[in-house]
Amino acid sequence: MEKLGKQTIKFDTPPTILECASIVGPKESEGPLAKYFDQCLEDEFWGEKTWEKAESKIIKETIHAAISKSGVPAEKIDCSFAGDLLNQCISSSFALRDSNVPFFGVFGACSTFVESLSLGAICTESFAKHVLCATSSHFCSAEKQFRFPLELGNQRPPTAQWTVTGSGAAVLSKSGTGPFITHITPGKIVDMGIKDANNMGAAMAPAFVDTLLTHFKDTGRTPNYYDAIISGDLGHIGKEIAIDIAKSQGYNIKSNYNDCGVLIFDKNKQDTHSGGSGCGCCGSVFSGYFFKQLKSKKIKRLLLIATGALMNSTSSQQGESIPGIAHAISIEI
Amino acid sequence: MEKLGKQTIKFDTPPTILECASIVGPKESEGPLAKYFDQCLEDEFWGEKTWEKAESKIIKETIHAAISKSGVPAEKIDCSFAGDLLNQCISSSFALRDSNVPFFGVFGACSTFVESLSLGAICTESFAKHVLCATSSHFCSAEKQFRFPLELGNQRPPTAQWTVTGSGAAVLSKSGTGPFITHITPGKIVDMGIKDANNMGAAMAPAFVDTLLTHFKDTGRTPNYYDAIISGDLGHIGKEIAIDIAKSQGYNIKSNYNDCGVLIFDKNKQDTHSGGSGCGCCGSVFSGYFFKQLKSKKIKRLLLIATGALMNSTSSQQGESIPGIAHAISIEI
Repeated sequence: MEKLGKQTIKFDTPPTILECASIVGPKESEGPLAKYFDQCLEDEFWGEKTWEKAESKIIKETIHAAISKSGVPAEKIDCSFAGDLLNQCISSSFALRDSNVPFFGVFGACSTFVESLSLGAICTESFAKHVLCATSSHFCSAEKQFRFPLELGNQRPPTAQWTVTGSGAAVLSKSGTGPFITHITPGKIVDMGIKDANNMGAAMAPAFVDTLLTHFKDTGRTPNYYDAIISGDLGHIGKEIAIDIAKSQGYNIKSNYNDCGVLIFDKNKQDTHSGGSGCGCCGSVFSGYFFKQLKSKKIKRLLLIATGALMNSTSSQQGESIPGIAHAISIEI
Repeated sequence: MEKLGKQTIKFDTPPTILECASIVGPKESEGPLAKYFDQCLEDEFWGEKTWEKAESKIIKETIHAAISKSGVPAEKIDCSFAGDLLNQCISSSFALRDSNVPFFGVFGACSTFVESLSLGAICTESFAKHVLCATSSHFCSAEKQFRFPLELGNQRPPTAQWTVTGSGAAVLSKSGTGPFITHITPGKIVDMGIKDANNMGAAMAPAFVDTLLTHFKDTGRTPNYYDAIISGDLGHIGKEIAIDIAKSQGYNIKSNYNDCGVLIFDKNKQDTHSGGSGCGCCGSVFSGYFFKQLKSKKIKRLLLIATGALMNSTSSQQGESIPGIAHAISIEI
């Protein structure tokens, strides 16, 4: 592989995304992308006693589904990358504890899915034949941990996003017929001083644009190179801010840009305010929807940029602003 | 690079650990390794209003020190890996938010330092000229988050370990005169069903032995190949368990094996029960002590295996056991 410009890495023998799987919760199962997911759950518990255990079961079963669909025996997977929003990433650790696969825990908040794919792609080109990448989030466990227990029935402001209950997992392979990960542009942290934990889209949009523009400058590409430019979970408000900032920098992305958090819920019929968020948002929408669009060549060139807000409830209570990050991968078939 | 056996990766052009830095808290400054650290703090706050902000300042200043000592301009660092024990790894994120360096957040609990070095080494051999790796922990923020607020004055059982207040950071380089990272053996999750969050050493020792033995089998080496085999933070109890399990598997490591958590505190004079723990334990002891031993060739072959307990306080409260993990790197000069 080779470094281009400031932050981009170009693969000489681009890894193939061999197979993906996705499982989502009940709210996501009523949204416009429902038919694309492998499994739609009827409730948030899935037979478990707690939301945390349910989230861990969701990512575990998604991983099993991805491995099973890929046809690669689990013992042939060289390593795995996974992370989630729960404190100390327990959803991922508990999901993978019986896997017998070397495990790298990653944390990039809602950017985790693309962070996993990026590191997985580096490993696949350099030493691994197969790498597993996965992430999850859960509406109830996230609300409880980051905001208020659901039982309180707190009202959510219109800028708030709805954490997706769901998981996405992918198996990367050194050999295959695509879709190929051709480039990655890992992001740096961008903090514009926004402090409202109920307005994550605004906090993360500057990081998205920073990585987007760096990707264009590093590769010499322009927005129209891609059939689709997709952000992880900026939601409706963050999406509009991102379009505006990009325009102010001379890049018009309005025609081919969209956001996983906008796509996963129906703004008019589902009460999800600014749209979806959470690691599982980008994870499930890519694994469920975009991977199939790439396989069927309806989309041939995709730039996927997952965004993350690198804060916790303590940092918010201590008056800290919300640092954002965005990692990009270029996928082609 | 090349994969050996089940889990080990051998580097063709082993990355050099160009420079390291370490900063520790007041308790560590009274321990036997005090003279090796770059900076010893007089109190746990370091002029900040909260322990979390203090921890973030410690890792930030440690990173600055490592970069400064290395002579590599910050803008020449291709990417960074960092993580810590605070929820959502805020210590690392806040420390690196002004760095302008592409950032991969990692979470391996107390194995984070070696996880960072492992991924950093993969990047250094494959595309990067320089990579930054860092981690931190803080006694007060960790106690507050994982066990009880210090103000309660709870008694700690003899099996409990003392989370190190400290940070270690390293700059890896494609070119240099060593110490070289020659091999890595990323660990898989091992969960033997231990549920006592005040006995982490016992929970993590089986993962340590699993990675240790896998490393020997993959490389064809035996314990006496190394001048020193060092675990991250098994502490006194975990260290004894590890020696026993290894012995039962036919490997005698008693003569050249020790533990960072055992080395950092004086068992007789300091009231730290089973010894040190936390990401900053392995981070500061390697960066402060072992790096200097390697540079001066007092140790020529080191196997560093950092161990992590992949749990959180919610998982303990929900009756879950504690999954352990251990990542190994072989360092030679």
